[in-house]
Amino acid sequence: MKHARFYAAGVYHEGTVNAEGLLIDEAGRTHRQADAMFLPPVAPGKVIGLALNFADHAAELGLAEPEVPALFFKPSNSWIGHRSPVIYPKGAQYLHYEIELAVVIGRRARRVSAANALDYVKGYTIANDVTVRDYITNYFRPPLKAKGWDTFGPLGPWMVDRDDLPNPGEVDLRVHVNGELRQEGNTRNLVRSCEQLIEYISEFMTLEANDIILTGTPKGLSHVHPGDVMRLEIAGIGTLENPVMRERE
Amino acid sequence: MKHARFYAAGVYHEGTVNAEGLLIDEAGRTHRQADAMFLPPVAPGKVIGLALNFADHAAELGLAEPEVPALFFKPSNSWIGHRSPVIYPKGAQYLHYEIELAVVIGRRARRVSAANALDYVKGYTIANDVTVRDYITNYFRPPLKAKGWDTFGPLGPWMVDRDDLPNPGEVDLRVHVNGELRQEGNTRNLVRSCEQLIEYISEFMTLEANDIILTGTPKGLSHVHPGDVMRLEIAGIGTLENPVMRERE
Repeated sequence: MKHARFYAAGVYHEGTVNAEGLLIDEAGRTHRQADAMFLPPVAPGKVIGLALNFADHAAELGLAEPEVPALFFKPSNSWIGHRSPVIYPKGAQYLHYEIELAVVIGRRARRVSAANALDYVKGYTIANDVTVRDYITNYFRPPLKAKGWDTFGPLGPWMVDRDDLPNPGEVDLRVHVNGELRQEGNTRNLVRSCEQLIEYISEFMTLEANDIILTGTPKGLSHVHPGDVMRLEIAGIGTLENPVMRERE
Repeated sequence: MKHARFYAAGVYHEGTVNAEGLLIDEAGRTHRQADAMFLPPVAPGKVIGLALNFADHAAELGLAEPEVPALFFKPSNSWIGHRSPVIYPKGAQYLHYEIELAVVIGRRARRVSAANALDYVKGYTIANDVTVRDYITNYFRPPLKAKGWDTFGPLGPWMVDRDDLPNPGEVDLRVHVNGELRQEGNTRNLVRSCEQLIEYISEFMTLEANDIILTGTPKGLSHVHPGDVMRLEIAGIGTLENPVMRERE
């Protein structure tokens, strides 16, 4: 089942998406996607990102894989839904997308072992961990100013239930910019799997329902500019599309 | 005015504190502090910490002051109120307190200049940015596992209104552990002032009401152990006290 949060005619809905791609609200009414404004598919709690969690991306940067998972937080001001614009900061030299399989936690988890970690997962969505490379001096610890700008956290378009993605360790990820294939990978190349990340994080932080883990991005980053459209596709979930827009004066 | 959030006889209250130190609830009833369970004085939104924002603390570590503010997020699982225990992680080699003046944002702020930054402040409280030094390999970018453990973010005991602390750039901070003075400083030695921090952060992140900025800690860190009691005192606010407790098996 696909779960979406959206506004239609100014009214907030938590609904689902049917086989024809129509949005179904709580009362069973259908809405065309074109008439809806998407929000992230859940109201996120903590959003934990992973730096350098794909072997091919670390290699692309000429870096070793981290000895321990390199975690950072993505802040609440960054979250937007499907089709909302990412605002290009004035003067930024290098802005790029990062496609990531986003794991949505379903219930309170502390000191969970990898073996039963997926029991604590509610579902999966797509994240775009938008980043201004300009401020990064250390790839293992990206500064807030690289990844924390308003609008730098598109999530969506919807969440699929855990059972709809039976193997999160074998999922194709693909990014097109203006129709051109730019980034491609498969979660089989994660340095740490979803299960291992839940074990590692929940050792010291209690995870709660609607916390989200962004599991890392494969190689293939490139500069995007105002006017570009980023289309992030994960097989079994869908396509998260966001335009890049110049900041208004 | 002092604002507190607390439970008394199992009921949640948002109240104030009178001159005798009694808690006053919404109906004007009084409660003794000893009969209350304190929560952080506001329900925090984003909590942004500062690494190395006191010149004397950077010098104590033999480090240069950061060229740009070194920011990190303190996560929601870390927040506790006055008198709740900080849990000492099993096997940790070096756990320490960090007293910080905590600035509570009062309304939405984006691209605010330092000159009028305090207009966006609702009040001030005390934060203890508890840290396990074990995991820190880079002081400018503390890893989540150093500062993100459950219970590592005491806040309180209450929030004072902005006008009750007319000069946040001239405030005494003092930590006693088991009655012994361990850490002492004054916010006149901040590398970046409250106003400068609001300007820097709001350039790229929208700050919202109840977001909190932890402005950094002075020199004087030391190891605390299960059984110790940390008392953090900021002149004009009050005293935030939390015991350190061994983790239960």
